[in-house]
Amino acid sequence: MFRTENEFVRWIRSLAGRPGGRARLGIGDDAALVEEAAGQELILTTDLTLEAVHFRRDLHPPRAVGHRALARSLSDVAAMGGTPRFALVSLALSRRTTRPWVEEFYGGFAALAKRFGVRLIGGDTAVVAGRTMIDVIVAGEVPRGQALRRAGARPGDQIFVSGQLGLSALGLRLLKSRSSGQLAGWPTAVRSHLYPEPLCALGRYLSVRRLASALIDLSDGLSTDLARLCQASGVGGRLWSDLIPRPPLDGSQENLDLALHGGEDYQLLFTVPPHQVSRVPSHFRRLPLSRIGEIERRSGVRLAGADGRLEPLIPAGWDCFRR
Amino acid sequence: MFRTENEFVRWIRSLAGRPGGRARLGIGDDAALVEEAAGQELILTTDLTLEAVHFRRDLHPPRAVGHRALARSLSDVAAMGGTPRFALVSLALSRRTTRPWVEEFYGGFAALAKRFGVRLIGGDTAVVAGRTMIDVIVAGEVPRGQALRRAGARPGDQIFVSGQLGLSALGLRLLKSRSSGQLAGWPTAVRSHLYPEPLCALGRYLSVRRLASALIDLSDGLSTDLARLCQASGVGGRLWSDLIPRPPLDGSQENLDLALHGGEDYQLLFTVPPHQVSRVPSHFRRLPLSRIGEIERRSGVRLAGADGRLEPLIPAGWDCFRR
Repeated sequence: MFRTENEFVRWIRSLAGRPGGRARLGIGDDAALVEEAAGQELILTTDLTLEAVHFRRDLHPPRAVGHRALARSLSDVAAMGGTPRFALVSLALSRRTTRPWVEEFYGGFAALAKRFGVRLIGGDTAVVAGRTMIDVIVAGEVPRGQALRRAGARPGDQIFVSGQLGLSALGLRLLKSRSSGQLAGWPTAVRSHLYPEPLCALGRYLSVRRLASALIDLSDGLSTDLARLCQASGVGGRLWSDLIPRPPLDGSQENLDLALHGGEDYQLLFTVPPHQVSRVPSHFRRLPLSRIGEIERRSGVRLAGADGRLEPLIPAGWDCFRR
Repeated sequence: MFRTENEFVRWIRSLAGRPGGRARLGIGDDAALVEEAAGQELILTTDLTLEAVHFRRDLHPPRAVGHRALARSLSDVAAMGGTPRFALVSLALSRRTTRPWVEEFYGGFAALAKRFGVRLIGGDTAVVAGRTMIDVIVAGEVPRGQALRRAGARPGDQIFVSGQLGLSALGLRLLKSRSSGQLAGWPTAVRSHLYPEPLCALGRYLSVRRLASALIDLSDGLSTDLARLCQASGVGGRLWSDLIPRPPLDGSQENLDLALHGGEDYQLLFTVPPHQVSRVPSHFRRLPLSRIGEIERRSGVRLAGADGRLEPLIPAGWDCFRR
């Protein structure tokens, strides 16, 4: 482990590189400094990544922990239709942590940050007796008035989702089963879980083309996040279970459950006004965009089965206060 | 405790109030939105407040924990010469936490935020089996080019400090001794520890009047923070122990040790070019400003005793990596 805070700060500064562009001051002062721009709105988001809650040392390689910790916040910026710019990391490191773990963690973080043009400009560090806790703050931008919100969906709007749902939960299940044979059979699911790809380009596309009336990222599960979008918009919704894109297991109920409640997919869920539906492409950069339902005036979300019967869809995704 | 995340979010939204002014979107969406301003630089800082590291449930009332968690970040903004504007809170709550604890915590946070005109616009929440962890992010602003940094001190500059040093460490010691008689005798020390006052007005004053060549807040202790300022400026410094303002204990070495290494005073330490020294007032709003030393070309910090003998001052304040 690092012997002093100064040693750690020197190391992380060398990793982050010199501040440049609009970042006037990075790691190593009391705070970071960034030049503001007229006509832009600043997007601020912060996401916790906690050992034993969001990752397990025996399942998640440190590189994946670093990637996932940043991906959570980048996905929030995607969900506003914005562009991520800067990141800060608060890290409460367990005493048991080794220096290679920290280096791999930041390696995964930095690789994703670089791909998205995100500069690490600050943070805080502590060492604790208990478990490791990470908080990643991302500052992004969106031209004034172009941000997409959870509120904005209207009755009649069509509900779309990107990608496949339930892959991440499936990947986690496979990792837990530790069956390497099974893992090899599902590289996509395991990869989706360990290295989710934030969909910032898709978020910007929806914002710039003004295709979506509301947007949210799927971090806690479709049933929970769609309920949030509907609540924020003051509407309800109806989903067709047949249309929900999910990994091709043997068509079981379990398969649908993963897609409805699995969480951590970081796909984008958005609503499109009827007259715009024809402008939504079937794919965005190879990622399928699927119409899965419709916004309704009555509150609550209902799921239509293959037989057409409607059942209430109870939010059963991730909720930190529920035991 | 709250039963669901939605219930918590509704409660915290009512506490934070509606977004307004330049805050376009607050708690309850994927991220917060803030309008940017031309000619301003954004100050971003994040500070961890950890149970068993920064506070103890048996010593620190939850109201003080909320106050201190925000004060740490406000002090960083003060240390840049800026004005705090917005805050986000990431909260990993121990399962043992009660709802009254959370309400008091946010009560202390909100009272300080209100006094400083800081709006709570976002955050993240989780429940954990272990200890409570808080990360407070503050976004502030400073007119372009006016930020004061750790770098900038030149040989010959005079070293100033605000207030008294060692009061917070003394207050913590009194709290630990649990002697209520002693506590009553030192209300200032206990108050300094539990409810430190961020010095944003002093920071702005130094910046606007262009009095200081370098500035840092004293969070980890004078010996550690002055070493950081000197290192960032590529200089060294000399302190006169007689001039260091400290609580009037019985003139013991212990008394000086608290002032040198105590930490958590959140006073401002700044350097002033010789031709500006006469413009530094003796007090800023009743807070004494004391000249305690001088910047030197040779690296390292030395302490001159009452007999004039110079000894190296080893940084012995808070360092999270040191056991």
